[in-house]
Amino acid sequence: MAEIAVMGYGIVGAGVVGVLEKNSDIIKKNAGEEVNVKYVLDLRDFPDDPIQEKVIHDVEILLADKDVELVVETMGGVEPAFTFVKRALESGKHVCTSNKNLVAAKGAELLKIAKEKGVYFLFEAAVGGGIPIIRSINNALTADRIESVTGILNGTCNYIISKMERDGESFEAALKKAQDNGFAERDPENDIKGYDSCRKIAILASIISGKAVSYEKILTEGIDGVCAEDIAYAKSLGMKIKLLAKCAYEDGKLSAITAPFLIGSKHPLFGIDGVINAVSVHGNAVEDVAFTGAGAGRYPTASAVVSDIVDAIKHKGKDEYPVLWSEDELVPEDAGDNMYQYFVRIRENEKNDDSAFEAVRTVSLDELEDEYGIITDEMTHKEFEERSQKVEMISYYRVI
Amino acid sequence: MAEIAVMGYGIVGAGVVGVLEKNSDIIKKNAGEEVNVKYVLDLRDFPDDPIQEKVIHDVEILLADKDVELVVETMGGVEPAFTFVKRALESGKHVCTSNKNLVAAKGAELLKIAKEKGVYFLFEAAVGGGIPIIRSINNALTADRIESVTGILNGTCNYIISKMERDGESFEAALKKAQDNGFAERDPENDIKGYDSCRKIAILASIISGKAVSYEKILTEGIDGVCAEDIAYAKSLGMKIKLLAKCAYEDGKLSAITAPFLIGSKHPLFGIDGVINAVSVHGNAVEDVAFTGAGAGRYPTASAVVSDIVDAIKHKGKDEYPVLWSEDELVPEDAGDNMYQYFVRIRENEKNDDSAFEAVRTVSLDELEDEYGIITDEMTHKEFEERSQKVEMISYYRVI
Repeated sequence: MAEIAVMGYGIVGAGVVGVLEKNSDIIKKNAGEEVNVKYVLDLRDFPDDPIQEKVIHDVEILLADKDVELVVETMGGVEPAFTFVKRALESGKHVCTSNKNLVAAKGAELLKIAKEKGVYFLFEAAVGGGIPIIRSINNALTADRIESVTGILNGTCNYIISKMERDGESFEAALKKAQDNGFAERDPENDIKGYDSCRKIAILASIISGKAVSYEKILTEGIDGVCAEDIAYAKSLGMKIKLLAKCAYEDGKLSAITAPFLIGSKHPLFGIDGVINAVSVHGNAVEDVAFTGAGAGRYPTASAVVSDIVDAIKHKGKDEYPVLWSEDELVPEDAGDNMYQYFVRIRENEKNDDSAFEAVRTVSLDELEDEYGIITDEMTHKEFEERSQKVEMISYYRVI
Repeated sequence: MAEIAVMGYGIVGAGVVGVLEKNSDIIKKNAGEEVNVKYVLDLRDFPDDPIQEKVIHDVEILLADKDVELVVETMGGVEPAFTFVKRALESGKHVCTSNKNLVAAKGAELLKIAKEKGVYFLFEAAVGGGIPIIRSINNALTADRIESVTGILNGTCNYIISKMERDGESFEAALKKAQDNGFAERDPENDIKGYDSCRKIAILASIISGKAVSYEKILTEGIDGVCAEDIAYAKSLGMKIKLLAKCAYEDGKLSAITAPFLIGSKHPLFGIDGVINAVSVHGNAVEDVAFTGAGAGRYPTASAVVSDIVDAIKHKGKDEYPVLWSEDELVPEDAGDNMYQYFVRIRENEKNDDSAFEAVRTVSLDELEDEYGIITDEMTHKEFEERSQKVEMISYYRVI
């Protein structure tokens, strides 16, 4: 029997305990032995929950207990999670976490310690919730050179935009609905500014490159500027606005971006609406493979954490380190150099310089009389910025 | 260095050799050693291909060669593939195959021999081409009770129906386009009658149940009866017709079916159009996870075969048998007992008995004056068959 401890008894932590319980037979079969939760570390007490008998408030207890082989970290945030996880690894315990902030900030260091200590540091749940995207890249698409990864990695943003699109709602109204339905935090900045997606694509970029990609160096634009008129233009073009997190790795060079894009109906992520996540992976043999599922939520996220527990227990001592990136930093190429087509809303205005953009497509909406939209040729963002000086631009989106 | 042999140098076999060559560095890293093709078994010669120096015509050569650790089987068909694969396993060689007919017919027996001999029998490419669906179910979704699997597992059928839907073409015209584009065989029966999808869902049903599911016992209806009028009704309902292969496993009971369904826009597979495959897996923790990608084609299929090679080489001697089902036969429940709603086209006719079906929705098309369509309540197929005696029915589909 493998004894484990869970740090943080919130939504995901309680989900992990729940899944371990309800699927104990399957987990035992897959892991090769029974998994038992010995401690739950939390600041709070849970007097009405049978878990209470396992609750401890002092991390030293679980760190000192030699019987505890594995620690689940579902506290969130970088500290004190980092200190606790580091010490758990240093005491020779495997760690499975759902904490994207921790992995994005400290992944390389923690992976190195784990490897030195002969234990596993696993984090399937940190990207895409229940979607087995990390395991698929590492253990399944092993015959491929993974050239790029494109994801809808934030369900909150995708819910908001889908809602605006379907019901013609304003950004503010859709955000409020997301909050009322529990799909968005009271302070939604981390989601709507793209910070959450950016951390997740940094993790995926680190996996495909094998190097430490700093999320701070990824160009990140949020969805807080998306308005009903932008959505109306997208619709009239037969396209959709999606917050995409993208990275591409070729010849040792990484490009990465998180931004709202205008995407066409043939894009693999076009049909992904509502509060779900999807990741499209392009390999040089398999072509495009997409993975879709619940990107958050108690049980889907717990499913991913528990699959990490199964993997760690099953492979203990077997030296199976699929997810590894070094501490060498890989700085993304200047995002200003990436080539994209752009969609631009321009105000009807005599001062606009007609030569600013060559439009491959022009669109105007009956209800917006004093403006029009164009889709430009491909150009770098630097060139785009220069050209856009010559017109009165209302908003813009990259187009793929 | 691991020496391997490839049996069958057709589309997939040549793809395997190609992927091993172009991604040799990645494969070496992931497998832990270099992989070298020592022999290619084929009846033909390939005088203009550098592979010719490895071509042999006699299977005994590769079976007798102790250096050959692993055999790839990309010949197709049950015989002589079965005899060759069986003998390869019996001589202690791992086998990786893309051959769904072989796996559906002889999977249990070959898995048993492999286990006894301490080698692997792997077949990721047999279902869903490049999509890592088998590995995801076995190695990634390990915390879940997998309750059901629903797939669009035949790209030919999905291409034909999408084409009919998009361009208003007849079945015959769409089939001809599929053949002209290399998406359908000259003799398309195996695809359009649903036989191919049925074998694939039998394999997935065997994996989730751990027992041998005979494909012969799965109710199978093809798409050869789908006509432009049916598609027009689906469109007017905001739905689509898709050839689905489905299985559900609960409390030791299996239900399975391959048939064209009418599916609504909220179904996870609604957006899957054209010559691609998709599989939606429902687990009791992860909820719905869908996997989408190229279900056929030289390199995507080869990607899956080579990922099996990587797995076998990496884990040789490590006793990692994720895909196992016993020889115990699991017979699907009588498909006539499964509950579905139905869409029925009924000819306007005085003899029709109004009480035959209770319609939850009725639809009529301007261009089809002497008929109408209804969506019924849920009922068993037996009940449906009884009731449909009372009306002049033109066509019907199960609805999900």
